[in-house]
Amino acid sequence: MNPTITTFAWVPEFARGFVRDLRPRWAFEEVRQPYEVTLITDAKTPAHRCYQPFGQVPTYRDDDVEIFESGAIVLHIAERAGRLIPADPAGRARMMQWLISALNSVEPYVMALAINDVFEADRDWSGARHAKVVEDLHRRLADLETAFGDRDWIDGDDFTAADLMMISVLGGLRGSGQLDGFPKLAAYVARGEARPAHRKAMADHIATFDNVAA
Amino acid sequence: MNPTITTFAWVPEFARGFVRDLRPRWAFEEVRQPYEVTLITDAKTPAHRCYQPFGQVPTYRDDDVEIFESGAIVLHIAERAGRLIPADPAGRARMMQWLISALNSVEPYVMALAINDVFEADRDWSGARHAKVVEDLHRRLADLETAFGDRDWIDGDDFTAADLMMISVLGGLRGSGQLDGFPKLAAYVARGEARPAHRKAMADHIATFDNVAA
Repeated sequence: MNPTITTFAWVPEFARGFVRDLRPRWAFEEVRQPYEVTLITDAKTPAHRCYQPFGQVPTYRDDDVEIFESGAIVLHIAERAGRLIPADPAGRARMMQWLISALNSVEPYVMALAINDVFEADRDWSGARHAKVVEDLHRRLADLETAFGDRDWIDGDDFTAADLMMISVLGGLRGSGQLDGFPKLAAYVARGEARPAHRKAMADHIATFDNVAA
Repeated sequence: MNPTITTFAWVPEFARGFVRDLRPRWAFEEVRQPYEVTLITDAKTPAHRCYQPFGQVPTYRDDDVEIFESGAIVLHIAERAGRLIPADPAGRARMMQWLISALNSVEPYVMALAINDVFEADRDWSGARHAKVVEDLHRRLADLETAFGDRDWIDGDDFTAADLMMISVLGGLRGSGQLDGFPKLAAYVARGEARPAHRKAMADHIATFDNVAA
């Protein structure tokens, strides 16, 4: 049986292109693994929380494994396919370093901006705090821009699961203008999103919401 | 040659017990791998940023691999030793799910509290925002408490690298009283921190700062 992921049947306009089912979708396309999608309307139900304790999407299931966390799911898809992970132990360790870096050193700053400016826009402190959130984010982006050097991908010539994750995380800034001062990172994200596998994943992700009546 | 980690020669009192070199130290002790420590006074230098682009600690080096990100370092120490990782692929995938969950779904909320209440305590919005930061943190902790059930460790009877990471992340709340309403999580953290390997790692971590004149 093909692996199955769970995601939302519908999300508001502003969330389209940003829901994290995009990450496993992209990984499936990169390794050419057909997959099924189960659509749910409410992730906060006890039934869904059995698979995702925080009441979020996506979750992943195959004949052997049932997991959540988009980072772990992408890694599992890559390992199962024997793709997107360097064969040598040192390259593999660096892939893991950058994958975790995307999730722990970069994403919290990307999310902080979305939380402050979108989800907490109506709070008293939101406007005053905005500049500090942007300052912290830009410091991380500047460090990453410097580290990136002249490589095509985050650790060299080959696209890995770490690139998929870092570009997905940086893709959370799409449309915000926050990458404008970081030309290497902007080019890196554009390079990743131009891959046929990303384009197919994004098209399928968006089509989900178009197919369901609001 | 023994693996080497880099950490700070000195940190202020409030940071002791919380610097992330504690994580690889704990992993080394669990797998009984002797290691060396290189102490630095400034992580923001260009020389150190070659190894850690964000100007942080720890970094890790052995004969084959040079990496940063405490999550990736712990995983590498575990893989190198063939310990702390379930042998079956499904157990391994769940270990990875919880390790990444600690770093991506829990730690941002733990850090948000420390950032708001310590590092941004002097900002205009900090006091007003505190209650919302605690509310978000508690929602995550409540979800985790529910998911934990009656297990000893996060995925069953065996302590894995995921427990090391989740307990390290929750240990960031040590002394804050934030775990008081979550008895299973508090007991879980206490169980982890009572392990001889954790006690040795913590003692060595603290001793570093005692040995260096302020």
